Amino acid sequence: MNTTTDFKRANAIAEQVKDFIRTEILPHEARARDCEHGPNEELLAQLRERARAAGVLTPHIPNEGGHLSHREIAIVLRAAGWSPLGMVVLNVAAPDEGNMHMLSRVATPAQQERFLAPLIEGRARSSFFMTEPAAEGGAGSDPGMMQTTATPAGKDWIINGRKAFITGASGASVGILMAKTEAGATMFLVDLPHAGVKLERALHTIDYTMPGGHWLVTLDDVRVPGDQVLGEVGQGFKYAQVRLGPARLTHCSRWLGACDRAHEIASEYTVRRAAFGKPLIEHEGVGFQLVDNLIDLKQSELITDWAAGVLDTGSLAIQETSMAKVAVADALFRVADRCVQVMGGTGITRDTLVEQVFREVRGFRIYDGPTEVHKFSLAKAIKRDVLSRMQS
Amino acid sequence: MNTTTDFKRANAIAEQVKDFIRTEILPHEARARDCEHGPNEELLAQLRERARAAGVLTPHIPNEGGHLSHREIAIVLRAAGWSPLGMVVLNVAAPDEGNMHMLSRVATPAQQERFLAPLIEGRARSSFFMTEPAAEGGAGSDPGMMQTTATPAGKDWIINGRKAFITGASGASVGILMAKTEAGATMFLVDLPHAGVKLERALHTIDYTMPGGHWLVTLDDVRVPGDQVLGEVGQGFKYAQVRLGPARLTHCSRWLGACDRAHEIASEYTVRRAAFGKPLIEHEGVGFQLVDNLIDLKQSELITDWAAGVLDTGSLAIQETSMAKVAVADALFRVADRCVQVMGGTGITRDTLVEQVFREVRGFRIYDGPTEVHKFSLAKAIKRDVLSRMQS
Amino acid sequence: MNTTTDFKRANAIAEQVKDFIRTEILPHEARARDCEHGPNEELLAQLRERARAAGVLTPHIPNEGGHLSHREIAIVLRAAGWSPLGMVVLNVAAPDEGNMHMLSRVATPAQQERFLAPLIEGRARSSFFMTEPAAEGGAGSDPGMMQTTATPAGKDWIINGRKAFITGASGASVGILMAKTEAGATMFLVDLPHAGVKLERALHTIDYTMPGGHWLVTLDDVRVPGDQVLGEVGQGFKYAQVRLGPARLTHCSRWLGACDRAHEIASEYTVRRAAFGKPLIEHEGVGFQLVDNLIDLKQSELITDWAAGVLDTGSLAIQETSMAKVAVADALFRVADRCVQVMGGTGITRDTLVEQVFREVRGFRIYDGPTEVHKFSLAKAIKRDVLSRMQS
Amino acid sequence: MNTTTDFKRANAIAEQVKDFIRTEILPHEARARDCEHGPNEELLAQLRERARAAGVLTPHIPNEGGHLSHREIAIVLRAAGWSPLGMVVLNVAAPDEGNMHMLSRVATPAQQERFLAPLIEGRARSSFFMTEPAAEGGAGSDPGMMQTTATPAGKDWIINGRKAFITGASGASVGILMAKTEAGATMFLVDLPHAGVKLERALHTIDYTMPGGHWLVTLDDVRVPGDQVLGEVGQGFKYAQVRLGPARLTHCSRWLGACDRAHEIASEYTVRRAAFGKPLIEHEGVGFQLVDNLIDLKQSELITDWAAGVLDTGSLAIQETSMAKVAVADALFRVADRCVQVMGGTGITRDTLVEQVFREVRGFRIYDGPTEVHKFSLAKAIKRDVLSRMQS
Repeated sequence: MNTTTDFKRANAIAEQVKDFIRTEILPHEARARDCEHGPNEELLAQLRERARAAGVLTPHIPNEGGHLSHREIAIVLRAAGWSPLGMVVLNVAAPDEGNMHMLSRVATPAQQERFLAPLIEGRARSSFFMTEPAAEGGAGSDPGMMQTTATPAGKDWIINGRKAFITGASGASVGILMAKTEAGATMFLVDLPHAGVKLERALHTIDYTMPGGHWLVTLDDVRVPGDQVLGEVGQGFKYAQVRLGPARLTHCSRWLGACDRAHEIASEYTVRRAAFGKPLIEHEGVGFQLVDNLIDLKQSELITDWAAGVLDTGSLAIQETSMAKVAVADALFRVADRCVQVMGGTGITRDTLVEQVFREVRGFRIYDGPTEVHKFSLAKAIKRDVLSRMQS
Repeated sequence: MNTTTDFKRANAIAEQVKDFIRTEILPHEARARDCEHGPNEELLAQLRERARAAGVLTPHIPNEGGHLSHREIAIVLRAAGWSPLGMVVLNVAAPDEGNMHMLSRVATPAQQERFLAPLIEGRARSSFFMTEPAAEGGAGSDPGMMQTTATPAGKDWIINGRKAFITGASGASVGILMAKTEAGATMFLVDLPHAGVKLERALHTIDYTMPGGHWLVTLDDVRVPGDQVLGEVGQGFKYAQVRLGPARLTHCSRWLGACDRAHEIASEYTVRRAAFGKPLIEHEGVGFQLVDNLIDLKQSELITDWAAGVLDTGSLAIQETSMAKVAVADALFRVADRCVQVMGGTGITRDTLVEQVFREVRGFRIYDGPTEVHKFSLAKAIKRDVLSRMQS
Repeated sequence: MNTTTDFKRANAIAEQVKDFIRTEILPHEARARDCEHGPNEELLAQLRERARAAGVLTPHIPNEGGHLSHREIAIVLRAAGWSPLGMVVLNVAAPDEGNMHMLSRVATPAQQERFLAPLIEGRARSSFFMTEPAAEGGAGSDPGMMQTTATPAGKDWIINGRKAFITGASGASVGILMAKTEAGATMFLVDLPHAGVKLERALHTIDYTMPGGHWLVTLDDVRVPGDQVLGEVGQGFKYAQVRLGPARLTHCSRWLGACDRAHEIASEYTVRRAAFGKPLIEHEGVGFQLVDNLIDLKQSELITDWAAGVLDTGSLAIQETSMAKVAVADALFRVADRCVQVMGGTGITRDTLVEQVFREVRGFRIYDGPTEVHKFSLAKAIKRDVLSRMQS
Repeated sequence: MNTTTDFKRANAIAEQVKDFIRTEILPHEARARDCEHGPNEELLAQLRERARAAGVLTPHIPNEGGHLSHREIAIVLRAAGWSPLGMVVLNVAAPDEGNMHMLSRVATPAQQERFLAPLIEGRARSSFFMTEPAAEGGAGSDPGMMQTTATPAGKDWIINGRKAFITGASGASVGILMAKTEAGATMFLVDLPHAGVKLERALHTIDYTMPGGHWLVTLDDVRVPGDQVLGEVGQGFKYAQVRLGPARLTHCSRWLGACDRAHEIASEYTVRRAAFGKPLIEHEGVGFQLVDNLIDLKQSELITDWAAGVLDTGSLAIQETSMAKVAVADALFRVADRCVQVMGGTGITRDTLVEQVFREVRGFRIYDGPTEVHKFSLAKAIKRDVLSRMQS
């Protein structure tokens, strides 16, 4: 992982990415939009081949194992996020992107060769099995409520439980799975498909273009070999922290790209479309909303870059990425909502990408921890800071 | 149309309606939710038959031609709105409900017998052809931009143009159609289906449970007999005003009912589901959002009732219904958004009605005139009031 | 206390009140504005004499002991609140108005004759000693933290403690004082001035026109005769509840009147003042803010009237008045803030009443319980409702 | 003016400034707070002497004529702004700070020696005569409405007109004055006091601690020598632009410092003060507000630094500083408002700096152009960008 940022390099990659999206992705975007659970596999494979040829596949990992710095990634993913289809084609979408990051940090060389390399090469997909069904009292935002268990059985482990919102579970070749052991929460690498990993049903969610969908899964005596423990037994939460901060920020960057695009589409609409004697944008009631977008987008960029810079110092940046996630998820929802609004009736039809971005971005205030959970933790941090200041 | 309100009667009808929804509609709701463009026709017909038997079909028109007062309608439609499927089954959904109201006010007895009676009896559906495609510079919020024309041809009229967002165009047996004539905007009653009325495609909109979908339509030499002019030639905008105020309020009442329900679902969720050691509702970050809902819902009810009361005095209540529409559409969107948020991941899945209500309610800030257009008119009204005060 | 509402009578009184304010109060308003801690006593006495002559003094209590209904009071106080100076002159300001209400409900006939009659006649002022200094851990929003004690001493009681934010303590002839006894919180009627009631200093608050100011007070062996217990010993919190609901609503109505006025001033300003080629009000960025005011003001009126109606049924209306207080305090702050904003530089000078209203209204979100405390209680109520619904 | 930023140097100066404020300023702050129109002159002179001795007077201009870079200034002024009294003592307050910047950019060496040097040395004060009375149709946010005229009279100019909100007019030794000439708007350096410059009255504004107050001024045949034209005749608006961007940002930085402080005070209050069984900060309804502050403060810092960086490239940064001004003024108002709210009754008394910061910050949304005027310009910029993109 780079810790210093080469803006020139990052901007050059971002420019390549954006060019590719403009010329190769945009023509297919409308078609992909109508498919629930991601673009169809054939189209995806075909576009991915072109991305590979153009040298923009997995653009945040220039060569095997070596990630860009977090600030560089922010720049590149913002460009890739400009098209929801683009994110998937370029292999920078969740959960693969976050999984690649964690495997590159925690997996053994042998595990990396077997599980990470195919992901980086865009030849395989992965899944992250963490969240559990709320209706059954499972772990959601509060990881302490985890119910899935892993029990040793000789050199293997036997895993039982239920998971929910498992993005991309269908079609993935590997799952990173969190379960309780006697020594504490532990992560496992599970080969997929697997007889014991039963995909019950794909949840219909308000966002629906993640490849593979979001699944409800039953884990029924899933046997995993001992050498497929990821990191050390009992250290699952620690590794989750490693994944957490960066994953929050790449979400921010991808959706920031998408909202930049929505804002561009909406702005153009308001220049072309007139009502009551002048272009919509000349109505302050419309123009001011676009100005609010401008500010929200810029501030989203700035706070993401700031938190990425803290990550690049080697810190886990738990608070900084939490602040960024809350601020950006809220800001981008406002942006997308305003884009819909200024486009009037058109804004709520799938004729425009804006409608999709609005729906997809709604999930972001909940994914990776609802706003309220982040505020809960940040308030505790403020209290700690005050107490230590008062004691000094 | 009644002008005085019998609260006892209205509440009794509302109670009947709510009972019917609880026992007959709720069991079918989840199934209906997955159908884009409304529930399937068979299910709809079957449930409507039961509504007829239960005496709750078209509950706001107790007997042919005699509407409840606007305040009474508000009470009854709030109850019916409690289920989006319920609204459709009970025959109080847009655009039929608004069309029934206008026909009862403007149509001739012969027109009423032919076009209104089947609507009231729930044996037919109707459509309202007003909005035109934005991309082609047609009339949206600014009716002055209307492009569709009607030209006299003997005793008939020939209509040409394009319309968009024509809700329920597929399946309707009559369309109320607005077009320009030399004498000004004029309304026509068009028999459907009609060779000249070409349904191009149903728009995929963020809300998608209106029966018949929202259509893009080409009007290609549509011939309409002279006795199917609705009201007088050239008075189309005047009649639109008659439809406008009440239609705004029935939208408010229906969606208020739906958001009441979403709030109830979300509240129960937060009592059952726990995190960080206590039920969600005991976290102020969650509980306060529900309190905000409580206040928004109550205020939505109060301002709707107030504007309905003004309508019941015989006024067009253009400003009052505009204020109510803006306030209620904004408030209900906040309510639905908070319901989604407090339910976390569950809130963005179609497993809960809340997700649907969130999407459907998003359209309400745009349908019947975007918030900004209403504010544009209301600001002009404030200026007029100030000027007249300053001159007195 | 009336429980039915005679709108005709209430509106007639309100009209009288408004006429008086227009002709007699407005000319003195600017002068009064510059006095911290209320208008000077001489001006006040003089204007009060005129109010008495005009028959509009204490307009909500038409004849001794008989209050208007809560809905009627809402109408009358809205009119009186149109001028902050007017409220004081007409004898409907806090805390006197709330104290009059409580004394008329709880005091003995002898106490009423001695303490209430002079208040109603506008010949005396009163104070309410409840809140304690936060810095010393005293009772603020959480009454359970009360530290002031009352100990029996023969037929008398001896009171010790500290109170804060005691509005009008200087100049009052009677204080209603809450203290802990062995039997629970108890209210006392204290003759003022009193050697043991030491007015330490008047707090400089952001609002500063309440007559007598807000005082920090030390209670040092304050001896009170046994027949000056208000109601029964140990029932203090119960009586506080009696005062609470109505007091919340009269605050709402008074400040609603003031904000109506601010909105009127601001609206006229935006019609007269031009920038960038047209009157400010024709800029949507300004006009839309005035529309938001219009809606906020109307909704404040509606929810106050609704809660007043519930009080008039005989209910304590704890939840309803809490909802109204939260909604109205927030809405009126937004209204005042927008009035300031649309008036630009002028809006932040004392040349306009708007600046004063903005400052005074800021306190309202805190007085009578901060918004957060009300939401805390209302969330508990939602939980109770859900549980009882789930059990039925 | 430096164009590159030495973070180490800037942080060192900021640290010195903060130390000085902690040890020398804070003890006098409460006393200064009660003086309308700034601290009394004696106290000010005395503290300024100490600042000079400590080497922190005019800390953003290390040696005559050489300003720190804009990013460095942002760091230093944030530290100075931590105390409203500190800003004034350290000689970084408006309007002097902005005037120093403009004089160093536009004035001739002779003008600099005579007018700038005493300002930098903290031996004199200055004023900026731009705004005109709104009630008389003068120039406020729209500079095109300027009414003040300058007419040549031999080698001199004669100026007539009215100005309003002239901060620090009383006590200033020089005024920079904008007036219309035949060649366009022109800036003049006026010696003060001056017989023709009549200070009519100090406006009572909601913020009241600017030294010298905000004055309404009549310019009555003010004769100014030709060599006291600032820059070239007719170029007044161009120079105003030079002052504008940096002045917006120094406002942002100063008030950010003040709000940081308010947030610190409020946070400590909520840790110490308890209600309903636990410290206020542990109530999410309070803690979440502090988290919102944390995010607003960080984003205010980031966007100010970003715009300052653009200024440091040599750009006028009109749009960037406009975006920063809008975002920061709105964010800081929210911060100050929340600080007031979480402190309950205490928050609205002058016992705490928080009350002052709330009032002072309210003006910021209006000073230097109300939010709406900035949005008006930014919306035009968006339109231009869209048009140029659509044409390319």
